Amino acid sequence: MGFDAHRFSPRQDRPLWLACLEWDGEGPGLDGDSDGDVAAHALVDAVLSAADLGDIGSLFGVGRDSRGAGMHGGDMLREVCGLISARGFRLGKASVVLVASRPHLDSRREEARKAMSLAVGGPVSLTATTTDGMGFTGRGEGVAAIASALLVTT
Amino acid sequence: MGFDAHRFSPRQDRPLWLACLEWDGEGPGLDGDSDGDVAAHALVDAVLSAADLGDIGSLFGVGRDSRGAGMHGGDMLREVCGLISARGFRLGKASVVLVASRPHLDSRREEARKAMSLAVGGPVSLTATTTDGMGFTGRGEGVAAIASALLVTT
Amino acid sequence: MGFDAHRFSPRQDRPLWLACLEWDGEGPGLDGDSDGDVAAHALVDAVLSAADLGDIGSLFGVGRDSRGAGMHGGDMLREVCGLISARGFRLGKASVVLVASRPHLDSRREEARKAMSLAVGGPVSLTATTTDGMGFTGRGEGVAAIASALLVTT
Ligand SMILES: [Zn+2]
Ligand SMILES: [Zn+2]
Ligand SMILES: [Zn+2]
Repeated sequence: MGFDAHRFSPRQDRPLWLACLEWDGEGPGLDGDSDGDVAAHALVDAVLSAADLGDIGSLFGVGRDSRGAGMHGGDMLREVCGLISARGFRLGKASVVLVASRPHLDSRREEARKAMSLAVGGPVSLTATTTDGMGFTGRGEGVAAIASALLVTT
Repeated sequence: MGFDAHRFSPRQDRPLWLACLEWDGEGPGLDGDSDGDVAAHALVDAVLSAADLGDIGSLFGVGRDSRGAGMHGGDMLREVCGLISARGFRLGKASVVLVASRPHLDSRREEARKAMSLAVGGPVSLTATTTDGMGFTGRGEGVAAIASALLVTT
Repeated sequence: MGFDAHRFSPRQDRPLWLACLEWDGEGPGLDGDSDGDVAAHALVDAVLSAADLGDIGSLFGVGRDSRGAGMHGGDMLREVCGLISARGFRLGKASVVLVASRPHLDSRREEARKAMSLAVGGPVSLTATTTDGMGFTGRGEGVAAIASALLVTT
């Protein structure tokens, strides 16, 4: 399992990165020392947890001076793929849930699915839901993501 | 994985549908264009995600004029069961967590378990929890559900 | 799957129990009739759900006079381990996500991993995340935990 949440940036020109894609014209992006890609980050944690290799904070660090600062979620997933591969695992299947009032995943689900699957080296499925105006995702303060990953031995 | 959340209706006479059961005398129901059954909807998403068939929005549509409008969660689960069956899968095991201040699942857990399992064509377990008065579920604004599903090939 | 959330106690001297460890000097603990250990409780629910044995409320009761009152999460996990063992299951793998603004898991992740794994009789991985100041975990009102468990037959 993995979980992550990031706040929408007050900066109008902050690019929106989500599910290893840049979402142009979908409003300000998610804040964070990295690119704020909650879908990629939740999946990083799910895969690291399945392989018992810590979590995104212990691997990439936390804060502006960390190794993960400015890093894209896709690059984190590629590194995690290499780590588990070196230990004799590969991703059998992953499922990621986006909890967000924007952007709408539907138009780019297939593109996002491919980008995430390619980065992590195994099949990733994506679903999206809202919280009906409730909570921080419902009020549009930010976006959350839940991920699960099942590893198989190579 | 699947996740869903719906808001309690302001209409006192809205029936409460949850986990494929109608809960009489447990107060107003959950709003939504369908029956608002978050447990069924989260499970629909978990099964669709495991089979990589999109999500509840892409399958049943969104809004008052969608195919899913007025539809019961149980009927959605039956349709999803048919979809995965046609692709050579069946549900090996599913687990659904209700996050709700009401209704209390305990009295009807077995009944709900049977109704959901029958609808989706495989074993579903149900647990329930509260959030100790915190967040939108704790304040009684609505109900959330998290689901996981493991498919097996037939 | 399992989920749990507890509120931080207003009592400054309430001990903080989390992931089967006592966290000295990390501020007031989590409230609850038991020790408030959300990580252990979410894992109890995940394991019970996987074995279709109800949930923490149906097994240990709810409230001050329940069997679970004053009970430590580790003892609950040991009991659950015995229950599934008697039915021919053991834990193949579990993953627990802490959603908390405090304490910081990193310094004691290995210790917590060992304590939880020993209690439940199988490998448990732990990750931690924050919600970027959003929601009840972000405001520091309480802590939530999500858990998944995969059982194998013995
Ligand atoms: Zn993140
Ligand atoms: Zn729904
Ligand atoms: Zn609890």
